[in-house]
Amino acid sequence: MQTETTLRFEPMPQREQPPPPSPRVRAEHAHGTVFLVGCGPGDPELLTVRALNVLRAADVIVYDHLVSDAILALARADTKRIYVGKERDRHILPQEQINFLLVNLARNAKRVARLKGGDPFVFGRGGEEMQALAAEGIAVEVVPGITAACGIAASTGVPLTHREYAQSCVFVTGHLKDGTMDLDWEGLARPSQTIVVYMGLKGLPVLSRELIAHGLSASTPAMIVEQGTTPRQRVLVATLATLPKLAAEQAIRAPTLIVVGDVVRVRASLEQSTAQATAARALAG
Amino acid sequence: MQTETTLRFEPMPQREQPPPPSPRVRAEHAHGTVFLVGCGPGDPELLTVRALNVLRAADVIVYDHLVSDAILALARADTKRIYVGKERDRHILPQEQINFLLVNLARNAKRVARLKGGDPFVFGRGGEEMQALAAEGIAVEVVPGITAACGIAASTGVPLTHREYAQSCVFVTGHLKDGTMDLDWEGLARPSQTIVVYMGLKGLPVLSRELIAHGLSASTPAMIVEQGTTPRQRVLVATLATLPKLAAEQAIRAPTLIVVGDVVRVRASLEQSTAQATAARALAG
Repeated sequence: MQTETTLRFEPMPQREQPPPPSPRVRAEHAHGTVFLVGCGPGDPELLTVRALNVLRAADVIVYDHLVSDAILALARADTKRIYVGKERDRHILPQEQINFLLVNLARNAKRVARLKGGDPFVFGRGGEEMQALAAEGIAVEVVPGITAACGIAASTGVPLTHREYAQSCVFVTGHLKDGTMDLDWEGLARPSQTIVVYMGLKGLPVLSRELIAHGLSASTPAMIVEQGTTPRQRVLVATLATLPKLAAEQAIRAPTLIVVGDVVRVRASLEQSTAQATAARALAG
Repeated sequence: MQTETTLRFEPMPQREQPPPPSPRVRAEHAHGTVFLVGCGPGDPELLTVRALNVLRAADVIVYDHLVSDAILALARADTKRIYVGKERDRHILPQEQINFLLVNLARNAKRVARLKGGDPFVFGRGGEEMQALAAEGIAVEVVPGITAACGIAASTGVPLTHREYAQSCVFVTGHLKDGTMDLDWEGLARPSQTIVVYMGLKGLPVLSRELIAHGLSASTPAMIVEQGTTPRQRVLVATLATLPKLAAEQAIRAPTLIVVGDVVRVRASLEQSTAQATAARALAG
């Protein structure tokens, strides 16, 4: 990806204006390119400028459940849209068929935008799609996206690292396989580490039990966030021991992100500080 | 952060056009707000739309070395700019004075954009600044950015996770303290885990030695990337054992990102596949 000093946009089409400038697509990518585009965690303003330019220039869009309607609405009206999946576990098309579809579209279309929630290279199977395309000689450009961990850290006020609370941050998925989670519990349950679990709702009781069994304190702060960064965001803050029950009681539903670690305390202290400061100002006024 | 179906931009100012619409800044944030803005790894097209809107609306910008000139050039001409640091270890202003500056600016200015490289909540001290502001009752909005790990994964074709090679991904910093790195080597040297090291150039020999001593194979693929996502990006791929010598020979300089793990193999196989496919097509043609 090349940078330029001046950032070019394609503005939204408006009447009686000159046509928008072409998006910056490299010459060798003018035909038969697949763009693996990270669309971020849900809020359309969290698209990158590059993702937006690619989306608007696409001839065909291939997308799944995690890409919001608000983002799809940004494509041109004449762009073909192909829906390939419901949820990560229940793809309408198996991964091999998605790969096959992308290869064939690239051979027949100028620009194919494969839209993914979050970042294509963080639990998005972007690596597999990139390999399948490269094996067929198709040009690929990967456009990074705001991964859910970063988007939700910002929208909840919980930093992923912090000099006092967390020197490392680890990302895992919480998918259940035959009712269990195949995770390296010893590697996760470390001091001063933030654990971020993608798609961990169903496995939350297992996660809680195993992390405590492998040495984390039952009182470690833990948070689950439903539909993070969207207007429907819900945040529950509890401890590692109490979060599973609370999430069940509050009927939390996917998509979720779970954050475990002392950084979750920062959110609590922020809310308190803000409330105190507001109260102090109200009294002073 | 709220979402809207229609995405609003402030287009670049042009003559004989109506003034751009106001950026979407919530009413309660109209005065005295600090925006902690992630600016991504360097490529200005990797700014989010939200970051760009905040940048253009800012009355004051506070920035450091990791924010590129190309990004600063996107601010309005009448926006005040304050430079607060050279490199992460050598701040012109100590962190406490940066916090103090932000509080005072927020009290005297409408909108303060505190620009940071990457994401504010991944090794950016954004958490500390947020806490300092909240303690003074200043409204804060955090705008996530493309963290270097995701930006450089995309620009180098190395996925951070992959069903075959890595089920987890961990982020750490490689800062040296008194010539050593205070990292949890046992927690890092795990099978099927991608390790991403921010700012690890000086500590690379220690990193290599300790990871091997704690169980990673000397032949584990490893990569160092200088100035990732920019036109000056340099990528060196080697093994955990050989990377320190290669980086020294090639005079790699900061800013860098180091990636250790089998996912680095995907890049090599991609290049080979593409070369093979190109050769095959050339022969067929």
